[in-house]
Amino acid sequence: MLQSQLFGKTLKTVPKDEVSRNAELLIRGGFIDKLMAGAYSYLPLGYRVLNKIKNIIREEMDAIGGQELFMPALQPKALWEETGRWTDPGKAVMFQFKGREDKEYGLSWTHEEVIVDIARKRVSSYKDLPFALYQIQDKFRDEPRAKSGLLRGREFSMKDLYSFHATEDDLLNFYKKAILAYLKVFKRCGLDALVVEASGGSFSKEFSHEFQVLTPFGEDTIFYCPNRDFAQNKEIAKVKTGDKCPVCNEKTLEGKTIEVGNIFKLYTRYSTPMKLQFADADGKKKDVIMGCFGLGPSRVMGAIVEVSSDKNGIIWPASVAPYTIHLLTIGTSAAVIEAGEKLYNHLLKKGEEVLFDDRAVSPGAKFADSDLLGIPTRLIISEKTLAQESVEFKRRGEEQSEIKPLKEMYV
Amino acid sequence: MLQSQLFGKTLKTVPKDEVSRNAELLIRGGFIDKLMAGAYSYLPLGYRVLNKIKNIIREEMDAIGGQELFMPALQPKALWEETGRWTDPGKAVMFQFKGREDKEYGLSWTHEEVIVDIARKRVSSYKDLPFALYQIQDKFRDEPRAKSGLLRGREFSMKDLYSFHATEDDLLNFYKKAILAYLKVFKRCGLDALVVEASGGSFSKEFSHEFQVLTPFGEDTIFYCPNRDFAQNKEIAKVKTGDKCPVCNEKTLEGKTIEVGNIFKLYTRYSTPMKLQFADADGKKKDVIMGCFGLGPSRVMGAIVEVSSDKNGIIWPASVAPYTIHLLTIGTSAAVIEAGEKLYNHLLKKGEEVLFDDRAVSPGAKFADSDLLGIPTRLIISEKTLAQESVEFKRRGEEQSEIKPLKEMYV
Repeated sequence: MLQSQLFGKTLKTVPKDEVSRNAELLIRGGFIDKLMAGAYSYLPLGYRVLNKIKNIIREEMDAIGGQELFMPALQPKALWEETGRWTDPGKAVMFQFKGREDKEYGLSWTHEEVIVDIARKRVSSYKDLPFALYQIQDKFRDEPRAKSGLLRGREFSMKDLYSFHATEDDLLNFYKKAILAYLKVFKRCGLDALVVEASGGSFSKEFSHEFQVLTPFGEDTIFYCPNRDFAQNKEIAKVKTGDKCPVCNEKTLEGKTIEVGNIFKLYTRYSTPMKLQFADADGKKKDVIMGCFGLGPSRVMGAIVEVSSDKNGIIWPASVAPYTIHLLTIGTSAAVIEAGEKLYNHLLKKGEEVLFDDRAVSPGAKFADSDLLGIPTRLIISEKTLAQESVEFKRRGEEQSEIKPLKEMYV
Repeated sequence: MLQSQLFGKTLKTVPKDEVSRNAELLIRGGFIDKLMAGAYSYLPLGYRVLNKIKNIIREEMDAIGGQELFMPALQPKALWEETGRWTDPGKAVMFQFKGREDKEYGLSWTHEEVIVDIARKRVSSYKDLPFALYQIQDKFRDEPRAKSGLLRGREFSMKDLYSFHATEDDLLNFYKKAILAYLKVFKRCGLDALVVEASGGSFSKEFSHEFQVLTPFGEDTIFYCPNRDFAQNKEIAKVKTGDKCPVCNEKTLEGKTIEVGNIFKLYTRYSTPMKLQFADADGKKKDVIMGCFGLGPSRVMGAIVEVSSDKNGIIWPASVAPYTIHLLTIGTSAAVIEAGEKLYNHLLKKGEEVLFDDRAVSPGAKFADSDLLGIPTRLIISEKTLAQESVEFKRRGEEQSEIKPLKEMYV
């Protein structure tokens, strides 16, 4: 992509009410635009990042047998009344409203009601089980505080997977597989996530498991064992800082975290009231056992920026970077411009994802923007490098650059 | 994909209130599920089709310089008041509601207000123009009649592109390019679309252009010249059936159609009230000139089913089919099963998109489902074909099948 053509130039300022680091850097870098508190547009650069995160999630969900589908955000009241959630917690978190002929709707903040409705039309026998369905979609939540950029939105991106089982054992096996798949997702996104016991909320009476990333800017607080044997959200914790880890006796620590995923054993919480049943091998009717697995791509994007940035800007892991190479020309001589265009076209042909800063702006502006955008590899062509038939090569986040022979780029 | 594992088995019946052919076939085939009037879930098979349509649109929008972004569906009242559309037509078509602290929101049925807000923060000079931004996203509309399956939804998929220009000439040039890109999209999706003059609605005082597909099941009515020199929506037409085409003098015809796209010259309808301005080369401030280009992926999907199906089911064009090969084994002998698995694995390795009907159901059920699903190429392996070291090859929509040597499949 030619940077001169890219929509979303970098900005010097951010909206006054924006206090989160992730939103500040993402807005200044031209990744997102703030529509209102808790609702952001993804500009072309930011949408590339978000889609890379989504695709990593897709790959790992497919790998554990998930099948992707897509459910409406607009939902009828009647379905939510079947589980009692139209009123509680519906009234507190759900946007609810009337349309024509006083028909009542709500906006989805989760999809148990809809997916169970889909499943109960199609499941009759144990032979129809197990299966796992997921979607990646915007969800809506009437958040009281929406001040954390992409970390707490009124509209936010969510991957929600629902699993359906004949037995509790089968759920537990899938639950373990899902934990491993989640850890793979976060690792691939450059995040070090802890598995943390937490409240089941409105979804489950048992503990749920959260995936939490340690950062001083986190909104959550956890107690955790430094050996990763144990971690609990402060909201439900019976331990406190310095208590012994129940597994390895190490002293537990307290840390601020960002939640990037949350998974629940639902058992029959939704299948019972909604009559999602199957006939077992003896012909006996049983309620389907379910699990629910949430992971927020937009939160992941915000969390990456919180943990991977410096005073000059973002430092994207290559796996989710909008482009992997940032090519800069410094100077306006025909030789520099020609060498830049030649290298750009060569890298494109090789299948590299390149942002080429071909703008007629000062070297200082180019370097500052390049730091802010945080693309992993920077290549610089200038009169000076051309005099040595070379290119300057620098990794974002490292201090030193290297001079490499230009011909190495053409291998 | 193994059909035994695919979620979304075929159904014998559809919801009683479902009267449209597209929804009937798509629901029976396991492509979609009806949540309520005007809102459907896309099951795994259907989501594959929808995504193929979206990707064709993406490629053609990228080819004319469009850059993809993503804007929220949840929108603040204040922005819509700037253009006057909160009240008119907002009150009629927009879901509007209050959240916490009586904050007022609307759900997007179009995105002019948001995209102009994004642009006005970033455009200052003629040097920032032109550009074109698009998104593919669900839109919401409080439709009085939502009885046409995917053709008229309360939640529906939409690609909306907005273009920004310094001069009217530049808009007109882009408008022409967009018409050609749209015709390419429809052709690639197997649809023969006419360019039809229509009302500008709330978007523009000038005629807009609709893309209409002729079908007896259409909701719209147009008058058109059989030579394609001229076409007008009945709503605004000054001609009637049998009148002479103003271009070629041929007699015009009347036809029922499905609208699959609609494009508008907005000029400064939104940039003026929202103060989206640029400084021209002389430093003079001018309002940015805009165009708006809508194309509904879910409508395209519904339209394809309306025009490409027979009494037994859907006939997908290969470009948007959920899979391109439907492999069926007939019979339960070890030889048949083994030959089926071997061919399935071979085709997957070759990169083919294959649905393998490995289910233990009757041949009749397999054939009926295969016709209903409408995958373009069907391969059948049975005792009979194996005895001849062959496979039966049939194109969906053709009467005759061919017997081909099995080894031809392994070339």
